[in-house]
Amino acid sequence: MKRILILNGPNLNMLGTREPQIYGFDTLSDIMERTAARFAGRAAVEWSQSNHEGALIDAIQQAHAGGYDGIVLNAGAYTHTSLAIADAIASVHGITPVVEVHLSNTAAREEIRRRSLIAPVCIGSIAGFGADSYVLGVESLLMKNQR
Amino acid sequence: MKRILILNGPNLNMLGTREPQIYGFDTLSDIMERTAARFAGRAAVEWSQSNHEGALIDAIQQAHAGGYDGIVLNAGAYTHTSLAIADAIASVHGITPVVEVHLSNTAAREEIRRRSLIAPVCIGSIAGFGADSYVLGVESLLMKNQR
Amino acid sequence: MKRILILNGPNLNMLGTREPQIYGFDTLSDIMERTAARFAGRAAVEWSQSNHEGALIDAIQQAHAGGYDGIVLNAGAYTHTSLAIADAIASVHGITPVVEVHLSNTAAREEIRRRSLIAPVCIGSIAGFGADSYVLGVESLLMKNQR
Amino acid sequence: MKRILILNGPNLNMLGTREPQIYGFDTLSDIMERTAARFAGRAAVEWSQSNHEGALIDAIQQAHAGGYDGIVLNAGAYTHTSLAIADAIASVHGITPVVEVHLSNTAAREEIRRRSLIAPVCIGSIAGFGADSYVLGVESLLMKNQR
Amino acid sequence: MKRILILNGPNLNMLGTREPQIYGFDTLSDIMERTAARFAGRAAVEWSQSNHEGALIDAIQQAHAGGYDGIVLNAGAYTHTSLAIADAIASVHGITPVVEVHLSNTAAREEIRRRSLIAPVCIGSIAGFGADSYVLGVESLLMKNQR
Amino acid sequence: MKRILILNGPNLNMLGTREPQIYGFDTLSDIMERTAARFAGRAAVEWSQSNHEGALIDAIQQAHAGGYDGIVLNAGAYTHTSLAIADAIASVHGITPVVEVHLSNTAAREEIRRRSLIAPVCIGSIAGFGADSYVLGVESLLMKNQR
Amino acid sequence: MKRILILNGPNLNMLGTREPQIYGFDTLSDIMERTAARFAGRAAVEWSQSNHEGALIDAIQQAHAGGYDGIVLNAGAYTHTSLAIADAIASVHGITPVVEVHLSNTAAREEIRRRSLIAPVCIGSIAGFGADSYVLGVESLLMKNQR
Amino acid sequence: MKRILILNGPNLNMLGTREPQIYGFDTLSDIMERTAARFAGRAAVEWSQSNHEGALIDAIQQAHAGGYDGIVLNAGAYTHTSLAIADAIASVHGITPVVEVHLSNTAAREEIRRRSLIAPVCIGSIAGFGADSYVLGVESLLMKNQR
Amino acid sequence: MKRILILNGPNLNMLGTREPQIYGFDTLSDIMERTAARFAGRAAVEWSQSNHEGALIDAIQQAHAGGYDGIVLNAGAYTHTSLAIADAIASVHGITPVVEVHLSNTAAREEIRRRSLIAPVCIGSIAGFGADSYVLGVESLLMKNQR
Amino acid sequence: MKRILILNGPNLNMLGTREPQIYGFDTLSDIMERTAARFAGRAAVEWSQSNHEGALIDAIQQAHAGGYDGIVLNAGAYTHTSLAIADAIASVHGITPVVEVHLSNTAAREEIRRRSLIAPVCIGSIAGFGADSYVLGVESLLMKNQR
Amino acid sequence: MKRILILNGPNLNMLGTREPQIYGFDTLSDIMERTAARFAGRAAVEWSQSNHEGALIDAIQQAHAGGYDGIVLNAGAYTHTSLAIADAIASVHGITPVVEVHLSNTAAREEIRRRSLIAPVCIGSIAGFGADSYVLGVESLLMKNQR
Amino acid sequence: MKRILILNGPNLNMLGTREPQIYGFDTLSDIMERTAARFAGRAAVEWSQSNHEGALIDAIQQAHAGGYDGIVLNAGAYTHTSLAIADAIASVHGITPVVEVHLSNTAAREEIRRRSLIAPVCIGSIAGFGADSYVLGVESLLMKNQR
Repeated sequence: MKRILILNGPNLNMLGTREPQIYGFDTLSDIMERTAARFAGRAAVEWSQSNHEGALIDAIQQAHAGGYDGIVLNAGAYTHTSLAIADAIASVHGITPVVEVHLSNTAAREEIRRRSLIAPVCIGSIAGFGADSYVLGVESLLMKNQR
Repeated sequence: MKRILILNGPNLNMLGTREPQIYGFDTLSDIMERTAARFAGRAAVEWSQSNHEGALIDAIQQAHAGGYDGIVLNAGAYTHTSLAIADAIASVHGITPVVEVHLSNTAAREEIRRRSLIAPVCIGSIAGFGADSYVLGVESLLMKNQR
Repeated sequence: MKRILILNGPNLNMLGTREPQIYGFDTLSDIMERTAARFAGRAAVEWSQSNHEGALIDAIQQAHAGGYDGIVLNAGAYTHTSLAIADAIASVHGITPVVEVHLSNTAAREEIRRRSLIAPVCIGSIAGFGADSYVLGVESLLMKNQR
Repeated sequence: MKRILILNGPNLNMLGTREPQIYGFDTLSDIMERTAARFAGRAAVEWSQSNHEGALIDAIQQAHAGGYDGIVLNAGAYTHTSLAIADAIASVHGITPVVEVHLSNTAAREEIRRRSLIAPVCIGSIAGFGADSYVLGVESLLMKNQR
Repeated sequence: MKRILILNGPNLNMLGTREPQIYGFDTLSDIMERTAARFAGRAAVEWSQSNHEGALIDAIQQAHAGGYDGIVLNAGAYTHTSLAIADAIASVHGITPVVEVHLSNTAAREEIRRRSLIAPVCIGSIAGFGADSYVLGVESLLMKNQR
Repeated sequence: MKRILILNGPNLNMLGTREPQIYGFDTLSDIMERTAARFAGRAAVEWSQSNHEGALIDAIQQAHAGGYDGIVLNAGAYTHTSLAIADAIASVHGITPVVEVHLSNTAAREEIRRRSLIAPVCIGSIAGFGADSYVLGVESLLMKNQR
Repeated sequence: MKRILILNGPNLNMLGTREPQIYGFDTLSDIMERTAARFAGRAAVEWSQSNHEGALIDAIQQAHAGGYDGIVLNAGAYTHTSLAIADAIASVHGITPVVEVHLSNTAAREEIRRRSLIAPVCIGSIAGFGADSYVLGVESLLMKNQR
Repeated sequence: MKRILILNGPNLNMLGTREPQIYGFDTLSDIMERTAARFAGRAAVEWSQSNHEGALIDAIQQAHAGGYDGIVLNAGAYTHTSLAIADAIASVHGITPVVEVHLSNTAAREEIRRRSLIAPVCIGSIAGFGADSYVLGVESLLMKNQR
Repeated sequence: MKRILILNGPNLNMLGTREPQIYGFDTLSDIMERTAARFAGRAAVEWSQSNHEGALIDAIQQAHAGGYDGIVLNAGAYTHTSLAIADAIASVHGITPVVEVHLSNTAAREEIRRRSLIAPVCIGSIAGFGADSYVLGVESLLMKNQR
Repeated sequence: MKRILILNGPNLNMLGTREPQIYGFDTLSDIMERTAARFAGRAAVEWSQSNHEGALIDAIQQAHAGGYDGIVLNAGAYTHTSLAIADAIASVHGITPVVEVHLSNTAAREEIRRRSLIAPVCIGSIAGFGADSYVLGVESLLMKNQR
Repeated sequence: MKRILILNGPNLNMLGTREPQIYGFDTLSDIMERTAARFAGRAAVEWSQSNHEGALIDAIQQAHAGGYDGIVLNAGAYTHTSLAIADAIASVHGITPVVEVHLSNTAAREEIRRRSLIAPVCIGSIAGFGADSYVLGVESLLMKNQR
Repeated sequence: MKRILILNGPNLNMLGTREPQIYGFDTLSDIMERTAARFAGRAAVEWSQSNHEGALIDAIQQAHAGGYDGIVLNAGAYTHTSLAIADAIASVHGITPVVEVHLSNTAAREEIRRRSLIAPVCIGSIAGFGADSYVLGVESLLMKNQR
């Protein structure tokens, strides 16, 4: 059974803790556990979160060293500013595939969020489907082996 | 059962007809039929293709008028040059959701292909998973109703 | 009596068919007929609409060949992307005058809609007055001959 | 009966005084009086001109305070450089509508004249019809109340 | 004997019909027939014209399917805006060579006409020689096989 | 019989001397002589080469003073950086026509090579046909007199 | 006791006269008097307002000539377009310190309002605190002498 | 009594340790303690510093969770490169107000320091008053509640 | 004898009043009178100064109406921001020649001062010679008639 | 004997662990030890690596506090995004010199890697010599003292 | 008596040899001799011309070595492309002053001619006065010593 | 023993001849001879200098033809403007390695000097170490063969 890591970047730990009547009561933990549960029996889905750019790079390198079969990465704002995370993804490319996901449709947000520095080195990108983006991201990694 | 239209833009009718040892022997028709088959029982998936920008606009309007539950759109090169298709999507927004898909990871291609004019008015975007992008696109529309 | 063609571009056929409580119940057909009626006795006002860039070019060339006294053109989104329509206007310039009109105040919309590719080859431009933009457009062509 | 102010910006007082065989013998005063006469019985059309950016702002504020029903503004070169006039228009927006007019087709002139700083806060824009632009501008304000 | 298609884009059908004392009395048809005649015995030169971007893409695909030995393409204004035609050329590249031609010296025209989207995927480009550009274009395809 | 000068810019003297298995064994001298031979009886084709921007300007002025009927210019990298060569061409414009040629399809190369400073003042431009570019360039000058 | 001039630019005289339920009932005069009162005994705070760029320059020069100890300047829209006001500030720099203030957080507004031409020659900048920006501005000048 | 956190970004811990004859002997600790002392009895001012972008994000989230009444943030160089800190500020916006402060007048420094990524999501911005910027920052937060 | 107007823009009235040990003790009045004196017997040199953009436009129009033989214009900072002054110069072009002068070498100053909006409509430009720039400016107008 | 710190940024810890047949079997540790050995007797060369931007800033500050004679810095991707590291280097400038090194020739890589934010505050820069870049970097610091 | 060198760049040797009914019959030699004659008794004016960038650099260095009192430089097209000539001027700056002159008003020409690379290192710039530009240039150098 | 050519571009022949109290008394000849002496026994170091772009291209081609083992190139200002020198380096690439050196830290200078046109085709780049840059450049070529 495949092992997939969902890696979350800065401020995603704030999900569900603010204005729940608008954004919903789901915390990141809720979303992650529900996603993992959905793939029970098909894949072992683990997850982590950090506000630190360097910690995300460490995590990518460790997932690679640990033999994970793929990473679903929501890099948050680092998506648009971190060439170093892009290099980390590139350094494990080919062996540990990384899929970029976003909760919101980043193309519909302000200019700076329309260019992703990490997308060119990911195998693919999924954005705009809310919590479903994580599900589709894991699914895309599982489908990859069926092709 | 939901009705989904997969709409394909310019040059996608050339798939599978050239250098099959590299790009595979799958024609657009093969991919479309296989995708439809995969959702048999869950959704009625229809498809069409055109090289004409105006014909794609007509198709979006007709799918809307015809009560389709969603459109999976691979607009090909018009993705980057057609504000008119974007307006067509916007004019059916809220009622007939449109998901943007691409076979290749457009973020890894030349500059002009990194900006999508249609992405801001789609509900979401999926790129880089080859023929699986269509499957993920249909899946995202079906998941939308379960939320 | 003068013959004027009002030519409408992509997605304008969707007017009045969606959220009428907001945008009004007027369809393009309603607006066109009311505009023609207003000039009854002063000018013969005809109209057409197409989502196809090429069809709009054909229409401009045919209006020119057919001896129309002027064209009121709402090119929709092609205003901002079609150099080919601009060339069509330029190729009839001096004989068949073209006036650019827009329902909305395009200057107040997003960046890409602030530059018109066709404006430089039209005799003038009118934007922001809703359906009145068509009336002012026809009026401007009739005034042209009184100067 | 409605009261409309036509406000003219820098250098428009030079109209008709130079190379009349080319630009015509009409002075600004001739054009203004002819425009006012045309609307006799339908609207009271007054006019003024200044080369001073600040004086144009003062005039907009005073027309607003004086209860004018609308302003037809040919801001000349300040169209392209005066954010302060734009703010003046915005500060009376909703109560005293302002229509932007230009004698020439500014879209066909040099780069710096293609972007209007004031257009986004006007209700609409009319350019390229020579002295008729003023007539169309007043007309657009009168039509506004018939809608 | 080789079969060459000369494909003409938008507004080229207007050649020779306007201000002939300036642009000459030659219609597109005259030029095409004269060009074909010049190569009589050396190559079978056929031609077509369309104002529709999609029709030009269809034509390129059909010429490829029909086994033409090369295409001389004057894409008119689509040269500068159509990434979709560029993709069509790229999709037949290597098998059906395409040469870009222009009547005028596009480098001497306005900014937007200085960048060709299709040139990078053509085998070569010829501009500025009037009707001779077509002759040189066909010649370049015939020379290609003699190298 | 016409006299044509083929003028070659920087580094073109390195042709054929490096990696001949890739670029061919043809030196610049081989190409020039073969081109001249091809036009034997139709035109007197002479040639020169220099790595010096100033020497190329001198050569253009001298060809003009010497009564050559036209210049085929491959300015190499100076194409993209030399406004002075452009001025030299402009200063003989109308009397001594200059045709720009390139071996490679410059439009398909890096950004800086896509803009030619000299193209706007040449009568036309030919690029991408290898050594045939020179033949087409001379041909275009001979055709010019037949029009 | 120090003498401080608060100088207000274009359209600030409109404060409090429009949509008071949103922007408050405070006129510029109210705000100025309340600010002056707050510093009673610590500083003599005077104020003026003009819509004229030149008048603001005159005022800066006169404050300098009149021996004021500092200027709190809200230049309104001239902040972003007036290099001449910047030069006036620079010409009194070192002797008559100028502090830039804004009611709104200009960084959160449209692009053109994010760059201040005058900020580089002011000693500092305060923006976003509503009427408190004036108080903080005067305070900053008084603190300057205590350091 | 209100609790205010002053948060300092990268390299601010170097203050006072280098070239004191120029920059003064005040360390960050000196400035912080003096600022806190100034507000004794009016507010509880605490402070911290980190060179780590992620640690600053953590600190903003923790101050929010800990119920601080506001944050005075000198983000140093991260001001211009950290979209992630901007997101952290935005995620606590409305509940925990953040004021941006800078010792120097950033508008007078090099280009990259003129655009703040965090300013748009702060309530206001204060720059150029040296150590007084911190005092004015705390003051602005205290004034906020008196309005 | 010719009549020449030297027109000075914003802040030039501050010359000589500040840091005279650096900039010299010469006031604008000193420089103007010395310049006029130098041309005594050859030309009647008058001068004025204003900080108001509109007043400079008025002055250009009045000099034209008053039959001056030329204007030497130091527009100060308005050089770089005033399209309206450029239009005023253009409106008298051909009859009342205007020469642009600057005390400093504007090309060596910051980016915004390197582009002059008024230079394209002046007959020529002189910059960098201190007070001598005025002398050279008047001289250039007198030489103009000797050619 | 001098003490030199070689400081390595993000992802450099991955050297030698992937595709060794291409990049070589040398790990960062191998390269660092070989470099240190080469300078045995001439300099004490120490080294560290971190994926954390903040940790690199801390390390620069500590090396400065610890009296190192210089730093050879390979900042990896932070070279192009970290203004904060640049500030750290600037804050120790003059006392602890920093030399920028890169394994690859960054000028030959993609656009974003061509601009170094840290180079302007380093004493010099060395790029493109593989592991030799470190040797040349240390050498440059030792030579500095011999001048 | 002062020694002044007038140095002319590329293509200026073509003056007077083409379309004299338009540009005049004056050759560069005529203009140079007339300029030298005008200053007879006041300055020894010598001149040279070259189409070679390197030769112009050599000439500037030699004039400096030869003790000339100043250089009037018309660098032609190299004005806009030669950073190397700018460096040559900078290397003699302070001892051998250089004045930039142009026959035409370069500000009124195409974009690329509006930026001078050499102006920032010259003492001043004179453009637009035809052959008088040389006279004014020499005059400015002679006035320099009288100040 | 290896043969290395140090090639110097424009204005480097001025080293040591101006303001020696600032730049030092070392002429280019002094530096070159000292560098050659340093490598005595390890490499034969020759050198030349030219102000002519074409001469530098000739020299690179001749060094290649003459079998030199490498070139250390300080191209001076041509670094930033000469695509032709870049092509010359590219044409000998792989056989005759070229190392780019600069005396100053070009990254700390004005914008135009931050982009090197030649760096992408050199094997590496060294800047900022004064005369030591030449030593490091030669060293890098000798190390290349030891790897």
